[in-house]
Amino acid sequence: MSHKKPLIFVTNDDGIFAKGILSLVEAVKPFGEVIVVAPDKPQSGMGHAITVNTLLRMAPSEIIKGVKAYTCSGTPVDCVKLGIHELLKRKPDLIVSGINHGENTSTNVLYSGTMSAAVEGAIEGIPSVGFSLADFSAEANFDTAKVVVKRMMEAVLKHKMPFDTCLNVNIPNIPVEELKGIKVCRGARAFWEDRVDKREDQFGTPYYWLSGKFGNMDKGADTDLWAMENGYASVVPIHFDMTAYHVMGELNNWEIQ
Amino acid sequence: MSHKKPLIFVTNDDGIFAKGILSLVEAVKPFGEVIVVAPDKPQSGMGHAITVNTLLRMAPSEIIKGVKAYTCSGTPVDCVKLGIHELLKRKPDLIVSGINHGENTSTNVLYSGTMSAAVEGAIEGIPSVGFSLADFSAEANFDTAKVVVKRMMEAVLKHKMPFDTCLNVNIPNIPVEELKGIKVCRGARAFWEDRVDKREDQFGTPYYWLSGKFGNMDKGADTDLWAMENGYASVVPIHFDMTAYHVMGELNNWEIQ
Repeated sequence: MSHKKPLIFVTNDDGIFAKGILSLVEAVKPFGEVIVVAPDKPQSGMGHAITVNTLLRMAPSEIIKGVKAYTCSGTPVDCVKLGIHELLKRKPDLIVSGINHGENTSTNVLYSGTMSAAVEGAIEGIPSVGFSLADFSAEANFDTAKVVVKRMMEAVLKHKMPFDTCLNVNIPNIPVEELKGIKVCRGARAFWEDRVDKREDQFGTPYYWLSGKFGNMDKGADTDLWAMENGYASVVPIHFDMTAYHVMGELNNWEIQ
Repeated sequence: MSHKKPLIFVTNDDGIFAKGILSLVEAVKPFGEVIVVAPDKPQSGMGHAITVNTLLRMAPSEIIKGVKAYTCSGTPVDCVKLGIHELLKRKPDLIVSGINHGENTSTNVLYSGTMSAAVEGAIEGIPSVGFSLADFSAEANFDTAKVVVKRMMEAVLKHKMPFDTCLNVNIPNIPVEELKGIKVCRGARAFWEDRVDKREDQFGTPYYWLSGKFGNMDKGADTDLWAMENGYASVVPIHFDMTAYHVMGELNNWEIQ
C-alpha cells in the first residue's frame, strides 16, 4: 500500500439504492478515497454472471452523497469489470462488496453477486472483501456490521491478502454488545432444500418461483454457520480455483486416457 | 446405479436451439433415458446465477426430436432446479451439460453457465459432467466431442463420482484421429485480459461491451490449457466448496478475533 490514501472500490448486488451499500460507504470512507459502481437495480442471485450478449450502461449517480458514485446496468461482476477497465483505468487498492441484505454463508458464495464481485477482485489481484448481514429486510440495522467492516478494514490494510484469495465476511443480526468476536472459518457444507412454487397467470399458463429453505447438514464447530449461530462474525477465505485436487489421483485410475 | 436404464438429464447454456446440445443428446442417448431442460435463449456467461426476482416459465419443446424436452426461461442453474424439483420430482442418475460452443477451461468455470449447471448437480449429489468444445461457431463440428462424451459416459456410469465433485471436460477442435487422449488436469491459472469497448447510441449516450482476450500465465504441463494445446481433451474435477483451507492458518494470525 502506498503512502497516498488507498482507493477503495465499493459495489454490491442489492443495487445502489440499498441501505447496505450506503452503510458500507459510511464505514470505509475514513480509510481512503471511495468510488462506487453499483447495479442500477437488484442483482441478487446473479452469481458470477457477466453480460456478454447485450450492451452495458454506466452513468454517474447522486444517490450516495459525498463520494464518486456510478450505476451500472449489469451484474456485480460487470460493475467490477467496467469500473476497473473503463472508469478507473487502473486497479483500486481494495474492493469491498455489500453490505448484503441477507447472509452469504456456505455454498451461497456461488449464488451471491456480492461475493462474486469479491471473487472477481481476487482474479484481478486486488484485495477484496464481501460483507453480508443476516437480515434480508430493506430496513436492516447495519450498526454491528459497520463495526465488523471497520475491524476488517484495519486488518486488510495492515496485512497482505493471501495469494489468489478474497474474504467472505458474514455478520449475525445481533446488537454489537452481544457480538463475541470475528472467527476465521471454513464454509459449511450446507445447501438449499429447493422448493418450486407453481402458479397460474391470468391465461391459465403455469409459471414458477424458486423457493426453499437453507439446511445445514454440517455439524462442525469450525464453520461459518456455527460461528453465526453462536454470536460470531465469520471470515471465510475464498479462492477462485475450483479444482478438486484431492480427487485427481482417484480420477487417474478411471483409465479414461 | 440400478438395473433400470439410467435417467440422464441434459442441459446447456447456449440454449435449446444450439447444435451443441443436439450433439450431446445424440451422444448420450444410447446410455439411458434422456430428458432435456434447456434455456429458451442463449445464457452464456450466466455463471451460477439463479432467478429470484422474477418468475420462471417452463414448457414442452419439439426442437429436439426423440426425447422429452423442455425449454426454461431462466439460467442453466434454474433449468437444473426446475427440472429436478418440479418436472422430475426426483433426482436423475446423471446430469450432462453442453456441449458448449467454446471452451470452458481454467477460471472460465466461474463464468460458464454450462459448468455452473454441473456444479449445481454436484450440490444435489448427482454425478454431473460439463462438456465444452474449443469452437465458438454455431456450426462447429462436434464429431470429436461426441467421441469424448461417449468415453466419459462409460467411465461415469462405471465409477462412483468423487464426493461433492463434478467434472469439467474440454475438447480441442481437432479431428478425432488427431486426438491424443483424455487427460486428468488441474484448471490453469489463467485469466481474461478485459477490454471494454465504448460506443455511442443514436442519442450520443455511451454504452459498453465487455471484450478481451484470454491470457495464460501458467506454464504447468498438468493444466487443462496445456492439454488442450497439445491435442488432449482435459478432465478437471471441480468442487463447490471454495474455502481456501490453506490460508486459514495465516488469517488466524491477523488477530481480528
